[in-house]
Amino acid sequence: MPLTRLEQQIAFLKEIDKLKTVLRRTSLIDRSRLENSAEHSWHLSTAALVLAEHAPEGTNTLHAIRMLLVHDLVEIDAGDTFAYDPQGHADKAAREAAAADRLFALLPTDLGAELVELWHEFEAGRTREAKFAIALDRFSGLLQNWGGADGGTWRSHQVTREAVLRRMEPIREGAPALWSFIAAVIEEATAKGHIFDP
Amino acid sequence: MPLTRLEQQIAFLKEIDKLKTVLRRTSLIDRSRLENSAEHSWHLSTAALVLAEHAPEGTNTLHAIRMLLVHDLVEIDAGDTFAYDPQGHADKAAREAAAADRLFALLPTDLGAELVELWHEFEAGRTREAKFAIALDRFSGLLQNWGGADGGTWRSHQVTREAVLRRMEPIREGAPALWSFIAAVIEEATAKGHIFDP
Repeated sequence: MPLTRLEQQIAFLKEIDKLKTVLRRTSLIDRSRLENSAEHSWHLSTAALVLAEHAPEGTNTLHAIRMLLVHDLVEIDAGDTFAYDPQGHADKAAREAAAADRLFALLPTDLGAELVELWHEFEAGRTREAKFAIALDRFSGLLQNWGGADGGTWRSHQVTREAVLRRMEPIREGAPALWSFIAAVIEEATAKGHIFDP
Repeated sequence: MPLTRLEQQIAFLKEIDKLKTVLRRTSLIDRSRLENSAEHSWHLSTAALVLAEHAPEGTNTLHAIRMLLVHDLVEIDAGDTFAYDPQGHADKAAREAAAADRLFALLPTDLGAELVELWHEFEAGRTREAKFAIALDRFSGLLQNWGGADGGTWRSHQVTREAVLRRMEPIREGAPALWSFIAAVIEEATAKGHIFDP
């Protein structure tokens, strides 16, 4: 007997529980352990709620939240790719596309297509909502590193000021109101030696 | 100098990182460890996206997601109260109200009030959106227990069929389309001895 729509949805919800086991390089702000991609997705979605007023005019922030909830699901198969790892980024797209093919196919076709569309929208980064969501994702990495006062992955991986500025660049357009804070944090962390300035 | 709105919001986002350290009694479906309240909030919010079509007509499921993102924040101070712990529930309201007073006061007044309102709406459970959100929260506990095939906290805490039925009751009104699945799972788990039927 084919699965009903509800049974397919429940199978998907059971499968995506695995995102809780995908570890990122960043730590919790209290530095007790590495952060996982599920709790990261929650923090980002909540940040979109809290920082909604700073989104550029006309941004549908609830739509950005929909994107943020699903943007990391492909990591269940593809794993997390460290922000400052050029090699990992070389085959990221192919690994993630294969993951999307498997995961979203668990859902009823129309709903699977809808979630794939949300993920593509985020990855393409062309809509106001995707730009805002990407800006928050970049901001989140900075918050986790800066929040813990030891420099986090910036320091442990000797990330350069130039690389951090490049990584944060999408914030200028996606959430410009955050930029002066970001710039100040980068200067402060560079002065402290948490960000490497050769 | 008083903090700017953005600085208050960032202080709040830094603070709520702690929700990732609040442990629930339920385990991940793979049973590798206990689930935390941040990743639980993500899974619930994503379930609201995936199961939106099963919400009663006229339910604004995006509003339900806003509620689900913040519904557990008070646990940062108040801790998680186990679903089947009557004693813990006796002073839950007082502990959580004190937590809300502290946490949401980190935000600009208007925004803090908005998030408190979302939390109160969830707790009161009177709107269609709150009923749907609560139904998903109850459903989530069932999914984690049923998904792992060992009976989870039902079995480890010898929870009775009557208690599970009482716990799941809000699903009948908040997401009635899920009820036949819920009922079947309860029967199956009772037959297996995962749910205690004295």
